[in-house]
This record gives sequence, structure tokens and C-alpha cells, in this order.
Amino acid sequence: MEGLSVRLAVALVHYPVRNRAGETVTTAVTNLDVHDLARSSLTYGAERFYIVTPAAEQRRLVARLLEHWLAGLGGQLNPDRRQALELVTVVDSLEQALRDYGDLCGQEVVPLLTGAGRRDGIAARELRQRAGSRPHMLIFGTGSGLADELFGRGWTVVAPIEGRNGYNHLSVRAAAAILLDRLCGAEHEQTTC
Amino acid sequence: MEGLSVRLAVALVHYPVRNRAGETVTTAVTNLDVHDLARSSLTYGAERFYIVTPAAEQRRLVARLLEHWLAGLGGQLNPDRRQALELVTVVDSLEQALRDYGDLCGQEVVPLLTGAGRRDGIAARELRQRAGSRPHMLIFGTGSGLADELFGRGWTVVAPIEGRNGYNHLSVRAAAAILLDRLCGAEHEQTTC
Repeated sequence: MEGLSVRLAVALVHYPVRNRAGETVTTAVTNLDVHDLARSSLTYGAERFYIVTPAAEQRRLVARLLEHWLAGLGGQLNPDRRQALELVTVVDSLEQALRDYGDLCGQEVVPLLTGAGRRDGIAARELRQRAGSRPHMLIFGTGSGLADELFGRGWTVVAPIEGRNGYNHLSVRAAAAILLDRLCGAEHEQTTC
Repeated sequence: MEGLSVRLAVALVHYPVRNRAGETVTTAVTNLDVHDLARSSLTYGAERFYIVTPAAEQRRLVARLLEHWLAGLGGQLNPDRRQALELVTVVDSLEQALRDYGDLCGQEVVPLLTGAGRRDGIAARELRQRAGSRPHMLIFGTGSGLADELFGRGWTVVAPIEGRNGYNHLSVRAAAAILLDRLCGAEHEQTTC
């Protein structure tokens, strides 16, 4: 049983995010985050995967990684990785990601914020039902999660993944995979993607 | 709405697994696999996370990693990681993992094999309903997946995660997170764990 169908992008934010002390910081890009989230994004039909960092040096590092996999030896030896990394777009702000994806879709994009500690979130199954027709962007934070300032904008928040023992310290790689599956997985009754 | 409740362990197999050419090989342990699967395992209530490798040198490497996080500075600075890594048990074979967890539970363990390319699998929602009362072990392969020989034993196979474009190259970190959520997630109607 298929549910609503919307266009989807994924964003991984390296600024503004919190560190363990709750301060707003810029984190470094993790190689494996790029690979894992690109593969999960492609699996669930996302059209773009935005790496968000204002650090020019970090953007250059990602560009080099992409060159190896898209134009270089990596992609020849491992075409599955290349196919996933073709989704990656490196941008310097979340606003730029939303604008870029909005331009691609010709429509304003609905941002979906995620955060392990949030109490204001909407369950994935509910989001599937009320998604409407506008394109969505599922936004994940590195470090200790998206900075508080992003939650003051009236954007929709996805309910956190609840563990069984009160433990909620999934890696962003695991959390992104689970939320993509909950929102877009064909196994669940209704899907948006 | 809670479903059946079973005790659960997770195993990450480094032998016997396939390489890209389909040959049976031993893979190296990946640091981030240990962290990510331990965190996902704890989140969903697994009692043990077995790292399976017959390579003594690899087992020593994992032991050093665990020492840093359980007894050393890593765990002091980052107790969430320590708590997850406390689930890790390093064994030299899958049989040893099943025996060890069976001893802990005082009951024979039901192995659940996973594999992206399988056509003989049972959907997670069906497994939740028919799990019965015996403890289960959810078994993941590194490399290009669990070796064929493991599928000739009459063990239950979990249906692969279906993507939307026929792309099924999730990382084992993502796949494990998704299947744990599908089997044990409180968000889904019925749970086993």
C-alpha cells in the first residue's frame, strides 16, 4: 500500500551544531558519514544529499573524496559507491541547501529537523500521512545534534527514535538510516517518498 | 501496542563472508562498525553484541579498542560509548557466539541471518509475530555479506531491505540499524524485543 509521494533530499549539517557542552560549533566532515548517508539516501529515493559546512577547507576535502569516487579509480572499482556519491552536493549553509533543492524542484522545500532529545517532534508515520505534495528535506546534525537556533524557526521536527532502555545515542549514520526507512520504507504501511 | 517479547543478541561476522568476487574470505574489523552496531544494539535492547573473527590479531585489536573505552580515558570522557561497548563480546566463530548466548539465556538461540540479495527471507513484521519465546540472534555479514554456506543450515532468513530504485547497497551500519528498528522499534505496531 503506497502512501503519499513527495520528492526528498537529505542534509547533513556540520554547522550550526552542538558539542557535548551544548555550545554551537562547526564539526569536521567524517568520511564514512558521506558514504553511509549517500548510500542510505539513494536506497530510499532521495534526489540530493547535501553536506553542509561553512569551512572552505572541509569543502575542499569532500571535493577530493568525490573526485576519487566519481572520476577516479574508486568509482571504477566500486560503481555502487559512485552511484550513491553522485547525490552529494557540498554547500556552505543549510539555507543554500534549501534554496538549491527548491530550485531543482521548482517549489519551496519543507525542512524536517531531527534531534535525539526533542520533545516537539511528529512521528514518522504521521508525517507520511500529512506530507502533502511539497518536496521535503530531512536534516541531520553531526556532533551532539543540530543547534537550538534551528528549532526556533517553526520548522517541522521529526520525533526522535526511542530506544528501549532510555539510551538514545545512535550514530548519525544509524539514525539517518532508521528515519529514512520509517518515512520511505516500502515495508511500512504508507510511504511519502 | 507491544508484541511478543524475546531476548536478543546481535552478531557481526567477519568470517565466513563473501568478497566482491563471491569468494569466502575473512574481513578486517572496522572500528566504526564496532561503535555503531554497539550503540544500535543497546538502543534496541540487545543484551550482547558479538564480533566474530577467527583472526587472533583482529581479536587483539578489538580488545585494545575495548580497553580504551571500557577501562581507559575514552569511557571516562564519553560514558555513552562505554555503556554501548559493554555489550561487545569477541568470539572466533558464529557457533561460539550462539553457544555463549545460549548459555547466558539457558535456552537454544534462534539465529536470524541477513543478506541484501536473499529471496528466501521473512519480513520483519512477520518475524515479530511469530518469534515465540526463544532468544534470537540477529546476524550480519561484513564484506559483501554472509557466505552462502550459512544459508544451507535451515536457519531463518530476514527479508532484505528493499530500496526504491533497486539499489541495495546499504552499509552494514545502516542495515543493522534499520532491521533492529523494524524488529524491535516501539514505533511499529508489534515488537519482539
